[in-house]
Amino acid sequence: MTSPKTHPGNFFEDFRLGQEIVHATPRTVTEGDVAAYLALFGARFAYTSSSPFAQAIGFARAPVDPLLAFHLVFGKSVPDISLNAIANLGYADGRFGAAVYPGDTLRTRSVVLGLKPNTDGRTGVVYVRSTGENQGGAMVVEYTRWVMVRRRDAASTPPDATFVPQLPAVVPAASIVPPVVGVPASWDPLDSGSAFSWEDYAPGERIDHADGLTIEESDHMSAARLFQNTAKVHFNLHAERDGRFGRRIVYGGHIVSMARALSFNGLANSIGPVALHGGRHANPSFAGDTIYAWSEIIDRAPLPDRDDFGTLRVRTVATKDRPCADFPLHDASGKYDPAVVLDIDYSVLVPRRATMRPTRR
Amino acid sequence: MTSPKTHPGNFFEDFRLGQEIVHATPRTVTEGDVAAYLALFGARFAYTSSSPFAQAIGFARAPVDPLLAFHLVFGKSVPDISLNAIANLGYADGRFGAAVYPGDTLRTRSVVLGLKPNTDGRTGVVYVRSTGENQGGAMVVEYTRWVMVRRRDAASTPPDATFVPQLPAVVPAASIVPPVVGVPASWDPLDSGSAFSWEDYAPGERIDHADGLTIEESDHMSAARLFQNTAKVHFNLHAERDGRFGRRIVYGGHIVSMARALSFNGLANSIGPVALHGGRHANPSFAGDTIYAWSEIIDRAPLPDRDDFGTLRVRTVATKDRPCADFPLHDASGKYDPAVVLDIDYSVLVPRRATMRPTRR
Amino acid sequence: MTSPKTHPGNFFEDFRLGQEIVHATPRTVTEGDVAAYLALFGARFAYTSSSPFAQAIGFARAPVDPLLAFHLVFGKSVPDISLNAIANLGYADGRFGAAVYPGDTLRTRSVVLGLKPNTDGRTGVVYVRSTGENQGGAMVVEYTRWVMVRRRDAASTPPDATFVPQLPAVVPAASIVPPVVGVPASWDPLDSGSAFSWEDYAPGERIDHADGLTIEESDHMSAARLFQNTAKVHFNLHAERDGRFGRRIVYGGHIVSMARALSFNGLANSIGPVALHGGRHANPSFAGDTIYAWSEIIDRAPLPDRDDFGTLRVRTVATKDRPCADFPLHDASGKYDPAVVLDIDYSVLVPRRATMRPTRR
Repeated sequence: MTSPKTHPGNFFEDFRLGQEIVHATPRTVTEGDVAAYLALFGARFAYTSSSPFAQAIGFARAPVDPLLAFHLVFGKSVPDISLNAIANLGYADGRFGAAVYPGDTLRTRSVVLGLKPNTDGRTGVVYVRSTGENQGGAMVVEYTRWVMVRRRDAASTPPDATFVPQLPAVVPAASIVPPVVGVPASWDPLDSGSAFSWEDYAPGERIDHADGLTIEESDHMSAARLFQNTAKVHFNLHAERDGRFGRRIVYGGHIVSMARALSFNGLANSIGPVALHGGRHANPSFAGDTIYAWSEIIDRAPLPDRDDFGTLRVRTVATKDRPCADFPLHDASGKYDPAVVLDIDYSVLVPRRATMRPTRR
Repeated sequence: MTSPKTHPGNFFEDFRLGQEIVHATPRTVTEGDVAAYLALFGARFAYTSSSPFAQAIGFARAPVDPLLAFHLVFGKSVPDISLNAIANLGYADGRFGAAVYPGDTLRTRSVVLGLKPNTDGRTGVVYVRSTGENQGGAMVVEYTRWVMVRRRDAASTPPDATFVPQLPAVVPAASIVPPVVGVPASWDPLDSGSAFSWEDYAPGERIDHADGLTIEESDHMSAARLFQNTAKVHFNLHAERDGRFGRRIVYGGHIVSMARALSFNGLANSIGPVALHGGRHANPSFAGDTIYAWSEIIDRAPLPDRDDFGTLRVRTVATKDRPCADFPLHDASGKYDPAVVLDIDYSVLVPRRATMRPTRR
Repeated sequence: MTSPKTHPGNFFEDFRLGQEIVHATPRTVTEGDVAAYLALFGARFAYTSSSPFAQAIGFARAPVDPLLAFHLVFGKSVPDISLNAIANLGYADGRFGAAVYPGDTLRTRSVVLGLKPNTDGRTGVVYVRSTGENQGGAMVVEYTRWVMVRRRDAASTPPDATFVPQLPAVVPAASIVPPVVGVPASWDPLDSGSAFSWEDYAPGERIDHADGLTIEESDHMSAARLFQNTAKVHFNLHAERDGRFGRRIVYGGHIVSMARALSFNGLANSIGPVALHGGRHANPSFAGDTIYAWSEIIDRAPLPDRDDFGTLRVRTVATKDRPCADFPLHDASGKYDPAVVLDIDYSVLVPRRATMRPTRR
């Protein structure tokens, strides 16, 4: 007697335009998760590392890294959205809301925004908007992603008309909500590791983040398990030996967190991301790859109603086995350089010069 | 001047029938342990993941996974019982008592229930009953295991007469204590990831848990260290290169936790284990192995005095490098299929249909 | 437009005698860090494992392992002191102060004590004294280390006259501060795993710690990330393939923590270190190495003003792929045996016989 209780994940035909999906497994975030995340990525941003530092700029205590919150929210959507996915194609319109603190419990729900069958007859693109909320119902992070999903049956007719949603190229400045509420913020550059303020960054400026960090199988699998992300391609060597790449594929979000941690060297005084305008996993990454990163400042804007922080819009590019002193991006044909694995466009907060107050100790 | 202070572990001759051993290193469990355990196994059961969910079914907050408690209790017994063991042969009569919460401190003591010298003259079987207690003296988990232990000296005469204890094949239903105390329990199937209630499972039903998870050296050693399990065979490549298998052996309990995490896909609405009737490590596992699992429902029983949950008795079989769609177990000769690494028989609680209450959000 | 914002680390020419450096990224230590550290090293000392045990000997609760505090303090100094280092040459005059508890926030500052250009014209030795403090300004650990640092420019003239500081061979007994304050301490040997008291150890006694523990790449990188130690040689396979050893080098402090964890087997009743008299990384370690350790009791002294604990001065030697039953140290020429990777000289507290009080349970 074989049970039908195993959840096979959804295929392209299973999605409906406008469909709302409540994802399983709410997650109470703890200091343990924060430490596990730190051991995985090693970020040194002072505001997520030190509660006194965080309090001096208006947090209740050191908040959870917004990318950890993103990964937890994302992970919940995998069993319903992308268990049968071939690739995450892109991200848009990502907004970060309430700061997450240890003790908060996160939930995720998604709405299907668009559906587009591919002409190969075997796959389609699903556009979903996922929203993560805390125990009080406050939005923590919401974003749109589109993902290529297998069809169960190539002969079936997908039930929905093709619909590709219009997605904003940039999250409007007015909808960027600073997670810090304290006035007046006081930012000690000796503690944060950098004296560069918001005024010191200029659009067009490029920063080589210099360091490289090698991925191990245990690391990317531990991260995905911590995020309760169950996508099969990350975990199963036995099956992936016969898969597209002959080995396990690293969760794309792992590279995002690596790039953010590497970006400390040049962007030490940044809080965020506070918005995710767009993102592409240009190429897959595997254990053994060494990840490097560089960034370009795209734009600089004051925050409406606040003069202690400004926003920087940043493009960060990560590569594998390729240092970034010459800022690799495209090859001669305009395609991504094969070494490029990530290209993301996001905003961070940076303290303004007047907010910098070295504390004598 | 060489010191006799190094603890060599006990050999078969060192055990006495009825001997009681108080094991070292009490352990205060924390949210950090919970996160480390999650990063190692990735379980998605809502009641250990979310404090609000746990509270809605009667826990004070999200409890520690009962298998994490089991491993911590077990680990303490290793230096005294199984440092010189060749193999854990089996488990019986395992009972889980008080729920464990972060902040609790666990201790373990054991009683020698049986001794049987093997005819090879070099080993013997030791039967011990180990009991884990919290700081208030409440039983957290107790179980009998038997283990093949080396003799120090093949020429010695073991001092005890052979005694093999009678062990129950099944923990009696009356001694299964539900760890949840709240009335009335409310179980949200959208949060838990499954709408299957206790009534939906039938004896004889078989579930393929579908997913596979590959073991890394770093993962199984990190787990054993977290459990303060010091068995040499897990940690020492230099010595094991010349050992039985030429490499480190994965702690058998690691496979138990993997199988339990994999069983979410089909048994998402289970709490437990609440009893461990029996268990065998059918074959050793090594780094690089991909673990799969399947389960059979052995029995279904209401809980005396409670109508919100019922028990399922489940047999879960784990394999290596072998998917479980056809439920592998024995070969033609009736021996374990060489791919089978674990065969455990345990009980879980599952909410009854009337306990399922989707929460509108 | 290339940015000068990337921090290249300091080179030998950048240091000045007497220079004070405040290091970045204060760090709030949590129970998560404690669990991550335990999963990495697996120590079983009861006082860091159990809050009730710690309280019975005078701690407020289970303190953070003093070596975890050391690594966190050390890690902060790396970007400023040793990012361009070739090797950590030695440690001296290390003192441990206030016990660290989860919730404390650690900061580090350093003073340049000495500078000595090497005759190769490409490197120099920098002597720094680093001090870690908690949020209240209390000293947690302070130590002197000297490190070989690259010069930016072999043609440059280092600006400071050579100055090599005089360093004490031993931390004076009077400046050893016991971290425990409770009176009267009660130490349960059944919980701690050993009945050996301070009186049972004698100078000259040698202890083989017996066990071996193999290093994985994921483990040593996770540890260094947890410590926010950014030294490039630990993390970047792509660059190190062309480096001195063709592979990543394990953080020397990783071996210190492994040796301390291994030393439980023979020194189970020790608290500490409470002083670090000296230390050398005799040879580098790499993933795949199996670490063993042995210790010699150098000295035994009562504590001034306390009769519940005494100090032992201990030399611990760690080796790779070489068991320590014959206490390897030097080869025939008086140089370190090539298997020796660590040689440290430190003090621990051990309970005196009268402090041992088995608790009936």
